[in-house]
Amino acid sequence: MNRVQPRTLSGFMELLPDQQLRFDRMVEILRETYSLFGFLPMDTPLMEASEVLLAKGGGETEKQIYRFTRGETDLSLRFDLTVPLAKYVAMHHGSLNFPFRRYQIGKVYRGERPQRGRFREFYQADIDIIGNESLSVHNDAEIPAIIYTALQKMGLNNFLIRVNNRKILTGFYETLQLTEKSQEIMRIVDKLEKIGHVQVGTLLEEQGVDVELVEEIIKFLGMSGTNQDVLDKLEEYRNVNATFDQGLDELKSMIQCLGAFGVDEKNFKVDLTIARGLDYYTGTVYETILTDHPEVGSICSGGRYDNLAGYYTSKQLPGVGISIGLTRLFYILESQDYLRTKITPLELLVLPMVDDLQLSANVASKFREAGISTQLYVEDKKFKQKMAYADKLEAMYCVILGEDEVKNNCVTLKHMNSGEQQVLPLEEAVAYVSEKLKKFGRFTPYRG
Amino acid sequence: MNRVQPRTLSGFMELLPDQQLRFDRMVEILRETYSLFGFLPMDTPLMEASEVLLAKGGGETEKQIYRFTRGETDLSLRFDLTVPLAKYVAMHHGSLNFPFRRYQIGKVYRGERPQRGRFREFYQADIDIIGNESLSVHNDAEIPAIIYTALQKMGLNNFLIRVNNRKILTGFYETLQLTEKSQEIMRIVDKLEKIGHVQVGTLLEEQGVDVELVEEIIKFLGMSGTNQDVLDKLEEYRNVNATFDQGLDELKSMIQCLGAFGVDEKNFKVDLTIARGLDYYTGTVYETILTDHPEVGSICSGGRYDNLAGYYTSKQLPGVGISIGLTRLFYILESQDYLRTKITPLELLVLPMVDDLQLSANVASKFREAGISTQLYVEDKKFKQKMAYADKLEAMYCVILGEDEVKNNCVTLKHMNSGEQQVLPLEEAVAYVSEKLKKFGRFTPYRG
Repeated sequence: MNRVQPRTLSGFMELLPDQQLRFDRMVEILRETYSLFGFLPMDTPLMEASEVLLAKGGGETEKQIYRFTRGETDLSLRFDLTVPLAKYVAMHHGSLNFPFRRYQIGKVYRGERPQRGRFREFYQADIDIIGNESLSVHNDAEIPAIIYTALQKMGLNNFLIRVNNRKILTGFYETLQLTEKSQEIMRIVDKLEKIGHVQVGTLLEEQGVDVELVEEIIKFLGMSGTNQDVLDKLEEYRNVNATFDQGLDELKSMIQCLGAFGVDEKNFKVDLTIARGLDYYTGTVYETILTDHPEVGSICSGGRYDNLAGYYTSKQLPGVGISIGLTRLFYILESQDYLRTKITPLELLVLPMVDDLQLSANVASKFREAGISTQLYVEDKKFKQKMAYADKLEAMYCVILGEDEVKNNCVTLKHMNSGEQQVLPLEEAVAYVSEKLKKFGRFTPYRG
Repeated sequence: MNRVQPRTLSGFMELLPDQQLRFDRMVEILRETYSLFGFLPMDTPLMEASEVLLAKGGGETEKQIYRFTRGETDLSLRFDLTVPLAKYVAMHHGSLNFPFRRYQIGKVYRGERPQRGRFREFYQADIDIIGNESLSVHNDAEIPAIIYTALQKMGLNNFLIRVNNRKILTGFYETLQLTEKSQEIMRIVDKLEKIGHVQVGTLLEEQGVDVELVEEIIKFLGMSGTNQDVLDKLEEYRNVNATFDQGLDELKSMIQCLGAFGVDEKNFKVDLTIARGLDYYTGTVYETILTDHPEVGSICSGGRYDNLAGYYTSKQLPGVGISIGLTRLFYILESQDYLRTKITPLELLVLPMVDDLQLSANVASKFREAGISTQLYVEDKKFKQKMAYADKLEAMYCVILGEDEVKNNCVTLKHMNSGEQQVLPLEEAVAYVSEKLKKFGRFTPYRG
């Protein structure tokens, strides 16, 4: 037979079962959290007509898109979950309730040259709140609370959600009469953490910004202290520019609410250097870094936008949202050994040592009826091989069914980690394992 | 602005939120059931190198494949979950424990001409048990038990899992010296239910099968009665052909176990007309029909195969599996109003009637901490509009926070369906809703 060497495309994730369990657990935490905050699930096709998907057009992403023709149809694979959301809301506008809160967790495609931490197929997990004509700025305060809750549930503590408001920046640069250069300035300022104040100053001067204004900008961006300190210092700039004042009001209102939403101050910081792209976001912007690993950059970003779907509909659809690059986050968590200890691939393995399969099937069914994840091993192997399988599978418990057990209407229950063994009537064994699992916490796949 | 008409490609499913909740619930039931039976999750790329995906080559599906070139790479979208499984097991053979039990729920692509009930992008939900060199036939008995459990949990009762064994057919046709024609005969016999015995007889004669043999075949296929009746009648054919005898032993062993696995006899039937394709399956074969709607055909099919991945590896990998066409099943269930009554999109909506957002945020957080899915409504609208939103959203409870409530440190809790209202201290309201939800059962998204 002519054989083909099996392989997986470069830049495409394919996990072994133990990794997959951890990945799925991460996804499950996100689903649970998003549902808890009243978001509805959405699932859109991976493929769209190119004319529809690229309606917004242009941009850096366009070169990376998987685009091809089938029959006479020009097709593209989605490269984010925002364009499909815009399409969905524009199409189904009459059937949705606004504010419309949806989450979507799905694969997206970008034909980048694969490199460390970059994928061609990767998961994004998005939440957005979309208003019809208007959307209260109070929604902006809830988004960091959701991310805070989700990351905490994943076992992460050392993260920092950094927040800013584009109106503050726009107003500030207007005041300095730098509106025309403001986009370029924000792009440079975005590098502050990487290259430092001196370098930023040099780059700004190269853009033709006067030295005094460079000083002003550096001083402005350099504001530090607690969130309250920064807000106090920003107050000193009030009453010069209306856009600035509006941005400051929005930022203050958000900071005030975070405590009420249960967000710890240590995980949340006003950072005036954050700008997030150049034209899409119009108010609040978010970034999230791992404080122990700032070098990996933002794991979760987003913000407020004025109009979601102008290229599809004349309806004004303001919104606020955030997106987690899930595949990348997973590899970071894996490399840090997060998520690692908590998942039991299998709670119980039934090992029959007698030929009567009916009896073993009945035993397995009883455990399953109690909600215990149970595998029945029916291969004709030696005892040693059966136990080796139980070990490799990392089953939490084994039930051994030998002739003695059958005769006495009992099972031998073995806790694999400790090696402890006991002989119990079936019903007692089921009750015992149920009780133990309840105490241990249920970390088997998809059980919360 | 130049606008593009938003649309979704024909043959691609896109659901509204209430449908999506039901779809997700169906997926969740499958995940829970598969985990309960000790299957591990798998997730493979949607795209593979064409050379790898089409290694098996040929066949009806090849024309339907989405295949395109990017750079110098010839790519294809997966058209089922079996080829990716074969690739995965061949590639990761050394890292897997055999028997390897995996489930995969994912989208597959076939560029068919869309018609009623046919999709170009659709979900399949597969389970397979793969052995290394060998796999006990006892595993074949467990597969219907899993499907039985899953369909029951979806609220389906009127279904019939039909089972046969290809060895019985092969042996029988060998006995009649019709081996050469057996594939053609099975294809004709497969139509029995649709066209009836007379028509099948005519078609068989057209294939050059002697009239007496046609009689023999019709008599054989016509066996009816309970499963035990059919097994008894099959015993009369024993000791003529070794393949037949082996098939009969396998079928008997399976039937004997089903009771022990908790499968009701009324949902399970031996049916000698089932053959499932022509060369892939080698032993047990399954089909599942909805007894009230046999016209939709099999919703869930599979069987035993001798070698999963011969085109990738020299390792012999026998297996048994079954696949549910999930997108199609969903539309059938929807049209029959299954799944419809059980899902609450939102458990609680907080409606502040005062400006103090901190207070409402705190109230929402308290409900969420108790695991109650809660949305906070922060738009600046009139009372009537706020209540209309709660109605449209189908929230189960509303919490109204007016000045009186704030003054008295209470909340007004309204049960939306009955209209019943009560004023309670916050902690009591949280405890009350928790208790009610516990009794009602938690059918919110992804909570089991």
